[in-house]
Amino acid sequence: MHPIGVIYSPFTDKSQTPIQASRSQDKGAVEVYPEYAEGLQDLEGFSHIFLLYVFHKSSSYSLLVKPLLDDQLRGVFATRHPARPNPIGMSVVRLIARQGNTLEVEGVDMLDGTPLLDIKPYVTYFDVRTDTRSGWYPAQI
Amino acid sequence: MHPIGVIYSPFTDKSQTPIQASRSQDKGAVEVYPEYAEGLQDLEGFSHIFLLYVFHKSSSYSLLVKPLLDDQLRGVFATRHPARPNPIGMSVVRLIARQGNTLEVEGVDMLDGTPLLDIKPYVTYFDVRTDTRSGWYPAQI
Repeated sequence: MHPIGVIYSPFTDKSQTPIQASRSQDKGAVEVYPEYAEGLQDLEGFSHIFLLYVFHKSSSYSLLVKPLLDDQLRGVFATRHPARPNPIGMSVVRLIARQGNTLEVEGVDMLDGTPLLDIKPYVTYFDVRTDTRSGWYPAQI
Repeated sequence: MHPIGVIYSPFTDKSQTPIQASRSQDKGAVEVYPEYAEGLQDLEGFSHIFLLYVFHKSSSYSLLVKPLLDDQLRGVFATRHPARPNPIGMSVVRLIARQGNTLEVEGVDMLDGTPLLDIKPYVTYFDVRTDTRSGWYPAQI
């Protein structure tokens, strides 16, 4: 695993990041290194994309963590907390535009300078599940 | 990055795997290694989970790939194709039950013996986007 680019956001400190990308309207940019730029072809057809990235400020992990939205310890795999055994972050963002190897996106929630691992298209047919139970998360956040 | 468990599925060959997990009803199991089992606490509250895993049979990558659902070359980041620069796979599956460190799941689309990297809860509020355009993918698959 190696970075294929970098994500720019307004957030330089963990205390500033929104709880999740879903309701954030914060703008950011994704720079894909030139050697991977050809892989961005056809991406403009998608309104939303998954960004997979490294929680690069997370230097260790815990199996029980206290999420921002909760006051109890929870199993880390039942949360989106960064202190995970493999520190991979995942967010859905809106793709506004592509200029060459740079993507303009909306709804970022990661730190500025986050190393990018992968981009996947958000596909309604694959990724929207409506008959869900969301565990300890509040219904409205 | 290192495996935290293994995913068992009915598929021993790439030609057998369904196109995506979304409409698959195939049963599988996720074994999380005992040293990480404590992190599964609270997961039962979620009807669906993201599995992040290694495309372990994908030994190289291409920036342009021909998806199963299409007859044209597409940028790999506009597809879910396994031949990616960082071979990370991601699927949403339904969580049926947990017995200790083993999860019974439905809707698997990965190969039997796939190395598991992470589990994240599928959270309606974060992950459901309905105002989407899904690019070159057909509306119904």
